Amino acid sequence: MEVETSGEAREAAARRSRQENVARRIAILTAGGDAPGMNAAIRSVVRTASGAGLDVLGVKRGFEGLAYGDFEPLSSRAVANIIQRGGTILGTSRCPIFRTEAGRARAAENLRYRGVEALITIGGEGTLAGSAAFTNETHFPVMVVPASIDNDVPGTDYSVGFDTAVNGALDAIDRIRDTAFAFERLFFIEVMGRDSGFIALEVAIAGGAEAVVVPDVKWNLDALCRRLEESQLRGKRSSLIVVSERPRTGGAFAIANAVSARLGMEARVVVLGYIQRGGSPTSRDRIAASRLGAAAVRGIIEGRPPSLIGEERGEVVYLPIGETAGKQRHLDERSLELVSSLSV
Amino acid sequence: MEVETSGEAREAAARRSRQENVARRIAILTAGGDAPGMNAAIRSVVRTASGAGLDVLGVKRGFEGLAYGDFEPLSSRAVANIIQRGGTILGTSRCPIFRTEAGRARAAENLRYRGVEALITIGGEGTLAGSAAFTNETHFPVMVVPASIDNDVPGTDYSVGFDTAVNGALDAIDRIRDTAFAFERLFFIEVMGRDSGFIALEVAIAGGAEAVVVPDVKWNLDALCRRLEESQLRGKRSSLIVVSERPRTGGAFAIANAVSARLGMEARVVVLGYIQRGGSPTSRDRIAASRLGAAAVRGIIEGRPPSLIGEERGEVVYLPIGETAGKQRHLDERSLELVSSLSV
Amino acid sequence: MEVETSGEAREAAARRSRQENVARRIAILTAGGDAPGMNAAIRSVVRTASGAGLDVLGVKRGFEGLAYGDFEPLSSRAVANIIQRGGTILGTSRCPIFRTEAGRARAAENLRYRGVEALITIGGEGTLAGSAAFTNETHFPVMVVPASIDNDVPGTDYSVGFDTAVNGALDAIDRIRDTAFAFERLFFIEVMGRDSGFIALEVAIAGGAEAVVVPDVKWNLDALCRRLEESQLRGKRSSLIVVSERPRTGGAFAIANAVSARLGMEARVVVLGYIQRGGSPTSRDRIAASRLGAAAVRGIIEGRPPSLIGEERGEVVYLPIGETAGKQRHLDERSLELVSSLSV
Amino acid sequence: MEVETSGEAREAAARRSRQENVARRIAILTAGGDAPGMNAAIRSVVRTASGAGLDVLGVKRGFEGLAYGDFEPLSSRAVANIIQRGGTILGTSRCPIFRTEAGRARAAENLRYRGVEALITIGGEGTLAGSAAFTNETHFPVMVVPASIDNDVPGTDYSVGFDTAVNGALDAIDRIRDTAFAFERLFFIEVMGRDSGFIALEVAIAGGAEAVVVPDVKWNLDALCRRLEESQLRGKRSSLIVVSERPRTGGAFAIANAVSARLGMEARVVVLGYIQRGGSPTSRDRIAASRLGAAAVRGIIEGRPPSLIGEERGEVVYLPIGETAGKQRHLDERSLELVSSLSV
Repeated sequence: MEVETSGEAREAAARRSRQENVARRIAILTAGGDAPGMNAAIRSVVRTASGAGLDVLGVKRGFEGLAYGDFEPLSSRAVANIIQRGGTILGTSRCPIFRTEAGRARAAENLRYRGVEALITIGGEGTLAGSAAFTNETHFPVMVVPASIDNDVPGTDYSVGFDTAVNGALDAIDRIRDTAFAFERLFFIEVMGRDSGFIALEVAIAGGAEAVVVPDVKWNLDALCRRLEESQLRGKRSSLIVVSERPRTGGAFAIANAVSARLGMEARVVVLGYIQRGGSPTSRDRIAASRLGAAAVRGIIEGRPPSLIGEERGEVVYLPIGETAGKQRHLDERSLELVSSLSV
Repeated sequence: MEVETSGEAREAAARRSRQENVARRIAILTAGGDAPGMNAAIRSVVRTASGAGLDVLGVKRGFEGLAYGDFEPLSSRAVANIIQRGGTILGTSRCPIFRTEAGRARAAENLRYRGVEALITIGGEGTLAGSAAFTNETHFPVMVVPASIDNDVPGTDYSVGFDTAVNGALDAIDRIRDTAFAFERLFFIEVMGRDSGFIALEVAIAGGAEAVVVPDVKWNLDALCRRLEESQLRGKRSSLIVVSERPRTGGAFAIANAVSARLGMEARVVVLGYIQRGGSPTSRDRIAASRLGAAAVRGIIEGRPPSLIGEERGEVVYLPIGETAGKQRHLDERSLELVSSLSV
Repeated sequence: MEVETSGEAREAAARRSRQENVARRIAILTAGGDAPGMNAAIRSVVRTASGAGLDVLGVKRGFEGLAYGDFEPLSSRAVANIIQRGGTILGTSRCPIFRTEAGRARAAENLRYRGVEALITIGGEGTLAGSAAFTNETHFPVMVVPASIDNDVPGTDYSVGFDTAVNGALDAIDRIRDTAFAFERLFFIEVMGRDSGFIALEVAIAGGAEAVVVPDVKWNLDALCRRLEESQLRGKRSSLIVVSERPRTGGAFAIANAVSARLGMEARVVVLGYIQRGGSPTSRDRIAASRLGAAAVRGIIEGRPPSLIGEERGEVVYLPIGETAGKQRHLDERSLELVSSLSV
Repeated sequence: MEVETSGEAREAAARRSRQENVARRIAILTAGGDAPGMNAAIRSVVRTASGAGLDVLGVKRGFEGLAYGDFEPLSSRAVANIIQRGGTILGTSRCPIFRTEAGRARAAENLRYRGVEALITIGGEGTLAGSAAFTNETHFPVMVVPASIDNDVPGTDYSVGFDTAVNGALDAIDRIRDTAFAFERLFFIEVMGRDSGFIALEVAIAGGAEAVVVPDVKWNLDALCRRLEESQLRGKRSSLIVVSERPRTGGAFAIANAVSARLGMEARVVVLGYIQRGGSPTSRDRIAASRLGAAAVRGIIEGRPPSLIGEERGEVVYLPIGETAGKQRHLDERSLELVSSLSV
């Protein structure tokens, strides 16, 4: 196969597009961990593009499909009745080949060969990084729609999927609360979030947790134990402690064991895991996905530079991909205080 | 009973409070239509106050309980395990007596008699208006936490309960969609919202509706019918049309009949009604209620003037009650366009 | 087109099947009102058939597709990831042409022309009646899987979809209860069920209703009002009354108005409507659908006479279609008593 | 305190009851692991008793409260608005003192001292065993309402809480399925059930699982791996395997690791844990709880011997406590086959 080197093919397609004035064509993919609302974003991209006279090709399995040329046309009808579905109809993957410069060059070839003029990628931090490398090296136009249950994409206040993940975790916590109250016990609940504590913090406030352990703040066994003892003295029948997943907090099991050993109290651990990732997206996520997906298409039509399509204080903004680095978001300290002031 | 005129009692209570340095006391009530998250707001007020050394009295049945002196003390334990519950543990009502100046004067007496130094009211537009009249006439300090599924409280971007109402309606629409797709039919779904179309608009975008009829924009039978006919031609198997409740749109039945008669298509109508008002609050509503409730207590401690505790572009703000008038919020036009551009 | 009279085509297909020993072929359709679990039944039929070496054709839009020859092959993969979906991927309809003997004859021709040897129909009372007429007249083998949210199919204790409908209605009632308790009001809630009160009765017991009005028992205004007055005297803050849909009870509005006029109490009405029909099927419905669907295929393989595949006291039974007439199920009187004895 | 030995006190109370013809009195407790529907059973007992002129005392924290005399009166109003709540308002515990004969004698004294004439216990297998020892030794009348998410109480087809646990697990699996489909991966999901596979089996059928590992059937690594490989060959994009909790299966992690090592496929594990135990009870559980609770009170009034109030083929039955031993229920083999025949 000579696809990788066929500059001619690429040229030919572009020429065809210009000369014959055929409908311009964009491609779309979802990458990294799936997030609820990705389907709503796909639908929005396809229908906005369709309304503007653009063709859309769907790329299967994220960057893997891009590297191997796995495409399918997406019509307005093909995205009917998916707005309410979790996961992604295009599939996703972690793709080693795309992590190489050769892989990315090959992906650009595959796109140009099919006459695709711009790419929309939907995903999290890794997808943003991959998209940045791809567009920098190949100069292929890219727009990134942030979608990550962890809400940790730099450069945007909000990533599609976060609200659904939080509400899914909250639903689980409301169930656990029934048993916690019946049994008067300590429950440690581990939630997702990778390196950031956004899920943990919102879930802790909304779930009425006694305490929260997040990667952003070093946790302290003495302080946590003191807090729990005081709660007992104030007559609390049971306590929930929300813990961000392992890499940086140690995880719920380690913390529960330490507390349990110190206080001599029985503790239970629940690791919510993948149930936070799926489920029908909430209104918030469907609307954000619809808005950002539509904005991505408009950005292409308007000829904007490769950008992250973000939300800033409620408004849609285009942030050039190069400017996203170092824009890490941080937990709101007042929210952290809220957890302890409301669990008295 | 001389409570209404006992200036002495009032004085005595205030004196007691100052001299004996007893815990200062605030009162809290919920009024108007109930909204999910009211309980989370009550919990936040009680626990924030408790942490600051303030006593809290709960007023039963809203302004009615205020006028008739129906109070009960609320401890931190009394508000345990309510953050997840819809409705309001304090009850609410529509109260004729509070609509008179005499009734409001009597309410202030009842508060002062018990040594209450400030009142927090939780409710919608009517509650804000009632609170404004009350504090203007009696000079009794009031803080208002906006809670209304209609999201129509002037002076704040968000009112507690809206997100739960939208997601509840969305859940219903997802169910109806199953039948709509199986049967290939037209469904008109009437949602709440009183004079404003906020619920209808969000539900329409998130529910993938074909069209939306809101009070804010005059609807047009010709345009709606043309749109539905075009959809049929494009091969759509079924369509959902979201309609705001009656007063200003005519309601779903009237519109369905008109469309049905014009197009000769069978139409089904579902009026969602009260199922939008209840249910366990979403994360968004529990967090907003927790933040705004805590801010109301802080506002009292800081000696702020009577205010609406609102959200503006994601931040908590104190808006003096007198300045809320005329701050009606309006539907976002780009969102209205989104409904039609995404239903192609 | 001569399909209707082509005895030859039919013969030829059967001959081919016998001689060439090709895979035998069955067809499947869903008819009447859609019910949650229909997709689980389709999946079970297709996969059980596939495991036994049978081909399956799906018929689109119920009897309409049968009459007009609208078929599509269904593979095991085609029914992946549908077990959790409400509605029916095959579609359904109310079909006038199938109500005539000529229409039914034509349907049999269409089946025989494609070499189909047996038909599985999934639906309610009307589907059973239509299937009976069809097989009686054409001698085409049919198995009927009962699926009806009303649970009113004669000859079986259970119809697929009922449990989901009841739980969907219950979820709505739990939401309404929040407002009812907050406002201390009377709520009349109208549920589906056509001529039978099964949904109403289960929802009333599980929803903790004060009273239930079903078609099976004549309701009495005096008794209902007395009951509600006694409740008020006993200190009940609010009451829910569940009412079966109109044809035979008069509907919730009529009853609410009569009660309201008599007692001088404000009453609210909610008509649940189509939200009871959709939604992801419960475990009960997915399992019943899986069992009955598999049994239908086995019945064909074993050469049983045309039957309803029912549940009787927890066991799967084959009831010859001719014996289902007059097997109407009746409400359990002890359950009716339970509603009033538990709402004291 | 001489409570333990005061035969006189006991006599006196019984005499008072007979002579003064005061309302007879029963007590109720919930024990062991909590199950959704326990509150519905409490409500049913209290209201049925109240309708029959009996007083009800609630015992706090199960057998612990019985041993230590922790009682509170339960009126019809006290059980309002709890039918929809998970957990148990009475609390529960694991109680060492009740495991001794002395502890049980003391419990009987505590009951007789308060003039209680019969006890209703709500719980699972352990509660049944404890109740049997208690009534055998003390001759105190007991009725047992089976409530256990594991559905493993001997002598009854159904235990309150099972349906909610299965549907809760199913909801989690539906969420995981979204990711499984997006990522094309193997997921092992561990569910509760103690020594029995009832939850696992129902969840596997209803969740469309590829395979199920239950304690009742020895699992075989070769067979499981062959099955999964065949699935891959047939083009399945992802597979879910449901595993009963550890004691007898080894647990999901061990099985996932073994399969993963053998097949060289990545596998993910989710342990559902306590989220299966809570949540608002389904219609099935609220109705079973209501029926069995009412039957327990009737059994006392009718003077039946100490019994388990069970369900047998849909009917309520009274099984004398002594006859429950050895009535272990077994998994239905046809259901086990259904899992594999439907996952082709």
